[in-house]
Amino acid sequence: MTALELAIAVRPRLHLALPQKNHRLSSIDQLLSLAKENVSMIVVMRSNATEEELNAVLTRIQEHGLKGRVTYGEERNIVGVIGAAIPPTLREELERFPGVQEAVRITRPYKLAAREFHPHDTIVQVGDLVIGGGSFIVIAGPCAVESEEQIMTTAFAVREAGAHMLRGGAFKPRSSPYTFRGLGEEGLRLLAQARAETGLPIVTEVMTPTDVELVARYADVLQIGARNMQNFQLLEEVGRSGKPALLKRGMSATIEEWLLSAEYIIAQGNPNVILCERGIRTFETATRNTMDLNAVALAKRRSHLPVIADPSHGTGKWYLAPPLALASLAAGADGVMLEVHPDPDRATSDGGQSLTCENFAALMPQMTALANVLGRRDARWRR
Amino acid sequence: MTALELAIAVRPRLHLALPQKNHRLSSIDQLLSLAKENVSMIVVMRSNATEEELNAVLTRIQEHGLKGRVTYGEERNIVGVIGAAIPPTLREELERFPGVQEAVRITRPYKLAAREFHPHDTIVQVGDLVIGGGSFIVIAGPCAVESEEQIMTTAFAVREAGAHMLRGGAFKPRSSPYTFRGLGEEGLRLLAQARAETGLPIVTEVMTPTDVELVARYADVLQIGARNMQNFQLLEEVGRSGKPALLKRGMSATIEEWLLSAEYIIAQGNPNVILCERGIRTFETATRNTMDLNAVALAKRRSHLPVIADPSHGTGKWYLAPPLALASLAAGADGVMLEVHPDPDRATSDGGQSLTCENFAALMPQMTALANVLGRRDARWRR
Amino acid sequence: MTALELAIAVRPRLHLALPQKNHRLSSIDQLLSLAKENVSMIVVMRSNATEEELNAVLTRIQEHGLKGRVTYGEERNIVGVIGAAIPPTLREELERFPGVQEAVRITRPYKLAAREFHPHDTIVQVGDLVIGGGSFIVIAGPCAVESEEQIMTTAFAVREAGAHMLRGGAFKPRSSPYTFRGLGEEGLRLLAQARAETGLPIVTEVMTPTDVELVARYADVLQIGARNMQNFQLLEEVGRSGKPALLKRGMSATIEEWLLSAEYIIAQGNPNVILCERGIRTFETATRNTMDLNAVALAKRRSHLPVIADPSHGTGKWYLAPPLALASLAAGADGVMLEVHPDPDRATSDGGQSLTCENFAALMPQMTALANVLGRRDARWRR
Amino acid sequence: MTALELAIAVRPRLHLALPQKNHRLSSIDQLLSLAKENVSMIVVMRSNATEEELNAVLTRIQEHGLKGRVTYGEERNIVGVIGAAIPPTLREELERFPGVQEAVRITRPYKLAAREFHPHDTIVQVGDLVIGGGSFIVIAGPCAVESEEQIMTTAFAVREAGAHMLRGGAFKPRSSPYTFRGLGEEGLRLLAQARAETGLPIVTEVMTPTDVELVARYADVLQIGARNMQNFQLLEEVGRSGKPALLKRGMSATIEEWLLSAEYIIAQGNPNVILCERGIRTFETATRNTMDLNAVALAKRRSHLPVIADPSHGTGKWYLAPPLALASLAAGADGVMLEVHPDPDRATSDGGQSLTCENFAALMPQMTALANVLGRRDARWRR
Repeated sequence: MTALELAIAVRPRLHLALPQKNHRLSSIDQLLSLAKENVSMIVVMRSNATEEELNAVLTRIQEHGLKGRVTYGEERNIVGVIGAAIPPTLREELERFPGVQEAVRITRPYKLAAREFHPHDTIVQVGDLVIGGGSFIVIAGPCAVESEEQIMTTAFAVREAGAHMLRGGAFKPRSSPYTFRGLGEEGLRLLAQARAETGLPIVTEVMTPTDVELVARYADVLQIGARNMQNFQLLEEVGRSGKPALLKRGMSATIEEWLLSAEYIIAQGNPNVILCERGIRTFETATRNTMDLNAVALAKRRSHLPVIADPSHGTGKWYLAPPLALASLAAGADGVMLEVHPDPDRATSDGGQSLTCENFAALMPQMTALANVLGRRDARWRR
Repeated sequence: MTALELAIAVRPRLHLALPQKNHRLSSIDQLLSLAKENVSMIVVMRSNATEEELNAVLTRIQEHGLKGRVTYGEERNIVGVIGAAIPPTLREELERFPGVQEAVRITRPYKLAAREFHPHDTIVQVGDLVIGGGSFIVIAGPCAVESEEQIMTTAFAVREAGAHMLRGGAFKPRSSPYTFRGLGEEGLRLLAQARAETGLPIVTEVMTPTDVELVARYADVLQIGARNMQNFQLLEEVGRSGKPALLKRGMSATIEEWLLSAEYIIAQGNPNVILCERGIRTFETATRNTMDLNAVALAKRRSHLPVIADPSHGTGKWYLAPPLALASLAAGADGVMLEVHPDPDRATSDGGQSLTCENFAALMPQMTALANVLGRRDARWRR
Repeated sequence: MTALELAIAVRPRLHLALPQKNHRLSSIDQLLSLAKENVSMIVVMRSNATEEELNAVLTRIQEHGLKGRVTYGEERNIVGVIGAAIPPTLREELERFPGVQEAVRITRPYKLAAREFHPHDTIVQVGDLVIGGGSFIVIAGPCAVESEEQIMTTAFAVREAGAHMLRGGAFKPRSSPYTFRGLGEEGLRLLAQARAETGLPIVTEVMTPTDVELVARYADVLQIGARNMQNFQLLEEVGRSGKPALLKRGMSATIEEWLLSAEYIIAQGNPNVILCERGIRTFETATRNTMDLNAVALAKRRSHLPVIADPSHGTGKWYLAPPLALASLAAGADGVMLEVHPDPDRATSDGGQSLTCENFAALMPQMTALANVLGRRDARWRR
Repeated sequence: MTALELAIAVRPRLHLALPQKNHRLSSIDQLLSLAKENVSMIVVMRSNATEEELNAVLTRIQEHGLKGRVTYGEERNIVGVIGAAIPPTLREELERFPGVQEAVRITRPYKLAAREFHPHDTIVQVGDLVIGGGSFIVIAGPCAVESEEQIMTTAFAVREAGAHMLRGGAFKPRSSPYTFRGLGEEGLRLLAQARAETGLPIVTEVMTPTDVELVARYADVLQIGARNMQNFQLLEEVGRSGKPALLKRGMSATIEEWLLSAEYIIAQGNPNVILCERGIRTFETATRNTMDLNAVALAKRRSHLPVIADPSHGTGKWYLAPPLALASLAAGADGVMLEVHPDPDRATSDGGQSLTCENFAALMPQMTALANVLGRRDARWRR
């Protein structure tokens, strides 16, 4: 573990207690250029380091035939060292300089998504809601939008129970060509209507680069599904849209690959990425997927991005979704996304993993009680 | 989902609220014989069913050329229907009889470990401690017993912080023949000494059938390691010992296989089995194993046995153990087992996944706060 | 195993010996409509069944309230039974009718790709080459097209050694946004130039629906990569293009999901699908992927489509590609696809899994010798 | 890849052509002591290196504060360098010494099983049979010994078809306590009788350390099952028995763990270990296991031990066993083990994966033809 990781590790409680500042916009362009130039080491300056101390570091880096690039932050400055031929002793050498807190070799292939560069939590704002940085959010709704009645009933029910955002698929990825593939733009219109009537922002999946513009006209958050986590054109198009993105982990993607996919979006200048763990494929068949809460906790450490969990897909069984939703929150997730359907037995898709509106209403007080004891703020906290 | 599963699903909260009775001893022998005779259906009688109603059911079963075997419970009686040729309409037919609550086809290959037969939680008693049935237990200690000083320091530290039981390996399974394999009986003696001085019961691993008698002389709970989950002779020998057993899930074992291994122990007349999820092997290598909390929640539904979780092995990283310990509790685990070492960097094994005594002391108040909000009793509750 | 599977199982050698007829075009439209109408059972008529016998079957089906749809084949006719409420005894009943060879319940969710409907091997024709039906094909070339010199050198070398087709990526899927992503259309032009000079048809990957038209202008076979196996818009667009498609199995896709993705392509009226096993993701990290030759043998049984194997990706190590290429052939693959690079150490991607031109030349005589003993024809056989 | 690996990689054909010498006995004790002393580098001397050149190397090693231990081989000597603090430049330095062929850092945790130390194939001799070193062996028989008639019928049938050895389980590992667990010693007696009547050596599983002596009295080769691959007491007991051991890979064991388990056996002074790949557990459920032929090819490179394959367990389907048996041979396996039963539908265990005697007889000529074209000798070659 790097010294920085250690530093991050020992102060997670502070994160929650301190007033959060959102640094993401101040430095995204500089981070971007750093990342593109293949930074191999970062030098974290102390918050009280002087300009002279910073310059001394830059001079030494040049003497080694390397380039130094400064990222000026609100609290502290960071120097990125560019060049492949980092002498093995450089780290120790630079850490002896006054004003240097620490120097860290960068070996992770993702940079924009990494906490090393960006120690504070990224906070994604969606309307009044804040996602990340110690809050918790509950997103609920049906797998697919099926009809006006179905989506309206659900939207009112989940708002009543305390959900913050509405989910629902207009375009559905289907492994068989013979099953319901969603209502398409009509589904988007129904979601927009539900938002208008309930005030809940909406998240819905976009499946192909050419649909991004269309879906972005309706949605507050663009969901990238597990099967598309490595559809790189789609990632870039969503990145260019500037809309907040909810990036599901692929069912066989490593945590590193997941963060690299986030990197694709951020590299387009869009830092508003919400990671979503939804279960991985393993040998166990008693559950549809294996919910990987290790990944939630580790992604929170390795990345500054908010991480939520989807226990409906993660378990594939409605009766396992509540305990795993509670577990996700306890593991450090910034929120959960749950499938809720007024009549799961008649759902066109994934009925077996959907909660009824009553199940959901019964779960919410437990979620809130747990969030309170964990010191988490409601996602509507700023209002 | 069977009707009975549904029934169990909707009343988990009741389980916690009601005074628990431990039915395990009343019927283990009958259950055993039922299981061995290949029961294909069970008929759950209402609690107020009369003897006549019961006899009418038995008569009808005989008329179909089948055998009926009654298990008399404190609250209600259960009839096991023996025979392979169950008519497809038998279930409906029997459910129309007065006094019958429901009839369920048994397809699960484990019977003694299944909740169908034994709807109440099994409670394993270890000294003053109760494991299962709504309590929560914290077991802590080093991976391996290394020296008197190490085990005593740890034992006092974890008791001080609130642990209920002490863990520590005297015999260690090692994948390489060149690594430390534990102190053997000397390690057992040190554990017994630690129990004498701290009052904490001890759990330690037994690796081979011929060691069961030796280890059982010292330990309060016999641990069966993940690599031995399908060492069937060992399971049977531990079953015969009558000692409480802590059965770790194999790293590639399905939930069904895990419960079948529990069945081996119970089938020797020993119902005191504690299941322990410790992470499964998946494609993800950023963590040592993938903690499967779906399995904790599902095992709690399918079985009456207590289920605990081991986030130290389940994550392989000390800094992920605390969030996953909290998540385990929220997912419904009856307790957690954690590796704690006074000096993890010098540990002979698994130092990287051990908490320090300070880490553990910092975690315990969070565990307790969470347990309270979840309505869980301390494992020392009866005192 | 169904009776039909059994029948297929016992006559694979016959397949190779008999003159092959390609039935795919005669019945694709009818099969398509059958599939879309949710056929639940198929009744295979004997090759000498009379029209009257056929009509008797259709009448009986109607009397059960079901619909029968006939697919007229060159050798024998097949009746698809449409309707969900198939009486459990219908199979036996119909098999007693004169002229009926057998009746089979369809439970597989893919129909167009299934052997049940289409017992003969599909043969995909690419220029002079025949893929499937007992031939074997060797496709070779670099992972990515890097320069004119690189692709020309490789193309001549692999043709000289006996390859039948040239592979090379113009658009490369890259998990990191900071790595080489291919030359794009310039790469396609270089591939076309290599084809012009060597006569080898070319296969190259298309990554997004909007690129299908462009890539189809240059390529003989459109490759759908593992990461896009469930990019359903892409599958459909490739289906509509009518070009032969090489469909790689996703790294965590089941065999059933793989065949369902083939179904998407065929359902657009394009039966020219070549399946390609390229290794799956498992816990084993000593190799990049785990080559699943069970899947090759099973896909050959369950589907009529040709199945090839890619041992370069399947192993990730150049020195394992030759033994696994031989093993693929022995397991029944209709061909192999291998990465060959004139200078793997300087390759922009996947150098570690590329054979040199010399390695490839050394392997080919072994491939040919093995193919001979297995009774397989060269893919250029018809010339 | 190390230089030595490269050297091994380019000369596998030579291995087959050259007269094989079995060096295993000459140096096992020295290798053992080397392994136990934690050798960190090995220096391979040229075959014509002089005593003075060897001494110069040893002196230089001492000057670095390290220890050198010489293993005298028939062809060449090898120096093991003991000590953790190997200077990074030591390799280059030693390779400039006259008489040194190469120096290799040892990072693999297994040493006795590694090819680095022992470049020639180990050949395990069982009666007249030679296993390893370019031969191929076919082991066939039922999963479990069920009766005298069953085992005798099978033994004569497989001998007639060309099998070299008879397999059959007397003690069966069963995941459920309610299934047939084998005939025990009676099964061993029937196997011995089958050997007496057919002349085929027998391999049978031993499940627990205390049974090793008993099983070793009857069996020619002791099988260690997949579930026991990390039952370390059993490995050691089999090691001490001196009997040839057939070590199945655990269903979730990495190749490295498999070789480490072999190390346990060899470390007891028993070099007669035959590795057996039998399929690993993955997400794919269409086959019982996923046969990992990458592992066969890689284990052959990394270890000098013979490696065979078990396509019956590896696929779990009788109709996939033949193509995968052929594929195993082509991938480089030193043999195959197949389940054959005179009446699979009535087998007490694993009938669905057993070939009939007729299936097996049909496969053998294909195996032999393939072995011929691959230049493999029959296991009875020396007679």
